[in-house]
Amino acid sequence: MATAPFDFAPLFPADLPAPAARWTGLAKYSFVGGNNDADQVPVEGLTDAATAVLEREGRTLATYGLASGPQGYRPLREFLVAKLQRDAAIRCTADDILIVSGSLQALDLVNQTLLSRGDTVIVEQETYQGALTRLARLGVNAVGIPLDHEGMRIDALASALSDLKRRNIRPKYIYTIPTVQNPTGTIMPEARRTELLKLSQEHGVPIFEDDCYADLIWDGRRPPAIHALASGGGVIHIGSFSKSIAPALRVGFIVAPWEMLSRMLALKTDAGSGALEQMVLAEYCRPHFTTHVPELTRALRAKLDTLMEALNAQFGTSAEFEAPKGGIFLWVKLPDNVDTLRLYQAALAAGVSINPGPEWSTNRGYSGSRLRLCFASPSHAQIREGVAVLAEVCRKEFGVPARIANVEKARG
Amino acid sequence: MATAPFDFAPLFPADLPAPAARWTGLAKYSFVGGNNDADQVPVEGLTDAATAVLEREGRTLATYGLASGPQGYRPLREFLVAKLQRDAAIRCTADDILIVSGSLQALDLVNQTLLSRGDTVIVEQETYQGALTRLARLGVNAVGIPLDHEGMRIDALASALSDLKRRNIRPKYIYTIPTVQNPTGTIMPEARRTELLKLSQEHGVPIFEDDCYADLIWDGRRPPAIHALASGGGVIHIGSFSKSIAPALRVGFIVAPWEMLSRMLALKTDAGSGALEQMVLAEYCRPHFTTHVPELTRALRAKLDTLMEALNAQFGTSAEFEAPKGGIFLWVKLPDNVDTLRLYQAALAAGVSINPGPEWSTNRGYSGSRLRLCFASPSHAQIREGVAVLAEVCRKEFGVPARIANVEKARG
Repeated sequence: MATAPFDFAPLFPADLPAPAARWTGLAKYSFVGGNNDADQVPVEGLTDAATAVLEREGRTLATYGLASGPQGYRPLREFLVAKLQRDAAIRCTADDILIVSGSLQALDLVNQTLLSRGDTVIVEQETYQGALTRLARLGVNAVGIPLDHEGMRIDALASALSDLKRRNIRPKYIYTIPTVQNPTGTIMPEARRTELLKLSQEHGVPIFEDDCYADLIWDGRRPPAIHALASGGGVIHIGSFSKSIAPALRVGFIVAPWEMLSRMLALKTDAGSGALEQMVLAEYCRPHFTTHVPELTRALRAKLDTLMEALNAQFGTSAEFEAPKGGIFLWVKLPDNVDTLRLYQAALAAGVSINPGPEWSTNRGYSGSRLRLCFASPSHAQIREGVAVLAEVCRKEFGVPARIANVEKARG
Repeated sequence: MATAPFDFAPLFPADLPAPAARWTGLAKYSFVGGNNDADQVPVEGLTDAATAVLEREGRTLATYGLASGPQGYRPLREFLVAKLQRDAAIRCTADDILIVSGSLQALDLVNQTLLSRGDTVIVEQETYQGALTRLARLGVNAVGIPLDHEGMRIDALASALSDLKRRNIRPKYIYTIPTVQNPTGTIMPEARRTELLKLSQEHGVPIFEDDCYADLIWDGRRPPAIHALASGGGVIHIGSFSKSIAPALRVGFIVAPWEMLSRMLALKTDAGSGALEQMVLAEYCRPHFTTHVPELTRALRAKLDTLMEALNAQFGTSAEFEAPKGGIFLWVKLPDNVDTLRLYQAALAAGVSINPGPEWSTNRGYSGSRLRLCFASPSHAQIREGVAVLAEVCRKEFGVPARIANVEKARG
């Protein structure tokens, strides 16, 4: 006997987020999503690593947490101990590290441990969209600090902290992406990191340091992590293998004192992050990480150059940008009359996806004609073609860039 | 200049769960945790699968969601479509399936989509501990329905539903583990599933069907899933590869109407579950699942026999149990004077870990002298030795079982 289909809607909680739409695939010219360069995935090396580690330790898959417990595959943590010391000057042990299912889980665990609805946190005015959407959903106020070419402005931070203190608000953390900032691509120099730490200690506000893009630096040189400079603790440091190896693996990590880790472990009720990726990454990275990453960054640098050339060719002076120090994205300013939220819609209809600035900023006025473009995933040809299409769309919608008669639009 | 270490504690929200303790490894005789039999992990097959799928599709790791989007690796969903039809009589398409990071994530997503603090749900009186702890943390009332040898008692369910209706409470779902019930090991026959569905439809309460153990049935025969019998929808069906292949992989799935899936997708903000496990599982399972599982269940059945023999030998009539129809755990009743929460502590000190009944039941009185023993992970020798140690501990603490003079305690 047929019955009317069951209606779940009356059961939904009042604050349930809107439903997702059906997935329709990536745009033809996709400049979003932090996807990486498929040509640079070290497939052979990962395959050899998978074979070796499975043959040696495949039996341990029968046990939740393998033989390593809830903090994650021990050899991966040991790789990270050495890597973090070498690259970021962080001195820690495997017991100070928690492997998570991508840095997104790190964000969630830190937030669950520290935040309640109505709390306040400090962020860079332009910052990672995923962080902003999480804070909004949690009902947490994000105070944005303006940036310059060296990252978060310390004078503005001091000002904001004093203002909050006057209003009797104790912010729960200062969230910073100091090493290849997302989206602006800057690197905060050591002196400024020290000043940031000083303010953090004075005001008793911990620092939440997100180093997810820190491996992808063109000249390979970076200041010590804020975590490394902090003699008094008070820093939670997170990172990821998504940008250095591959995003679909979903492996990130947290370095934090046991006071924090023990709380996050109690909240990480997933019976462990995926074991196979951890095993394969440890097996691959130990011998190959330090040779793989420079190759990857060389390829990414070449794509950045293609993107900047294409923007110059298509937009001329209408597009302003500074070359990032590394990473997979470029932050661009278009003329003030360009509303990049509208540009996003029009471009999508033409097969080009971009990240509109307001989704990556706490300051709508400042970001309204800015946008973020990821360049790792599209090919060189797709970058050139996509930017040409974007310029055409922008011209139609906003009258800029003006048509440049003597530029041949290459549609290779 | 050294500063006092930063103190995070003043920043913690009031309701933060207690911190986790440092991991100390598994007990010498570990009868907990749903771990699987290491001898039965199909290491060679998984290795071959990893090699094949990486060589063919490794490049796609550069993209979040691979080429399949947020519902998970399409070939794995297609494998599940065929498997679910063949084994559980479920007719669905790949679009009706969401791959998740283990069935624990399925529990979390369903709960986030349907539950608010103060809500009520219906569960089997004895049920999966992970479900109970989640509901407690969410502030949701779990009404437990007594079980018999065929699962949830329908008369008791009808009673509970009427009682809730009288009190103007609309329960959000009926959570059932009908196919190898955890912890009791029963299988709900088809006729009872139909009655359950009828009550569900009459009262407008959806069914949340957890089929995580349904592959491990000794005689390989099982009734159609409740999801398959429901002509009017209203059933959310979940499953997992943890018991059929390996738990550390962290791969589960949800089958549900788009009205529910679209909401869960909006909440699944992890940028996808681990891709490598999904790829390897699809590659391995397509050719090998139907030959692997009977081998696995044969091995598990043999361990069950060893466990039951050991209990008979060591506990005699003090231990009552019914052989489960499949699975990896046995539900045991000890004499009424045995407090299994206390037994748990004493046994742990002696190197034996067990699951005390009250952690697996909504009825403290009923479960106070019951316990769950997982038998997949320990070896046959460890099962025998562990049960001997447990009997000794139980005798010391509670005076039962009485010493059986003519039984030699084999410590092989």
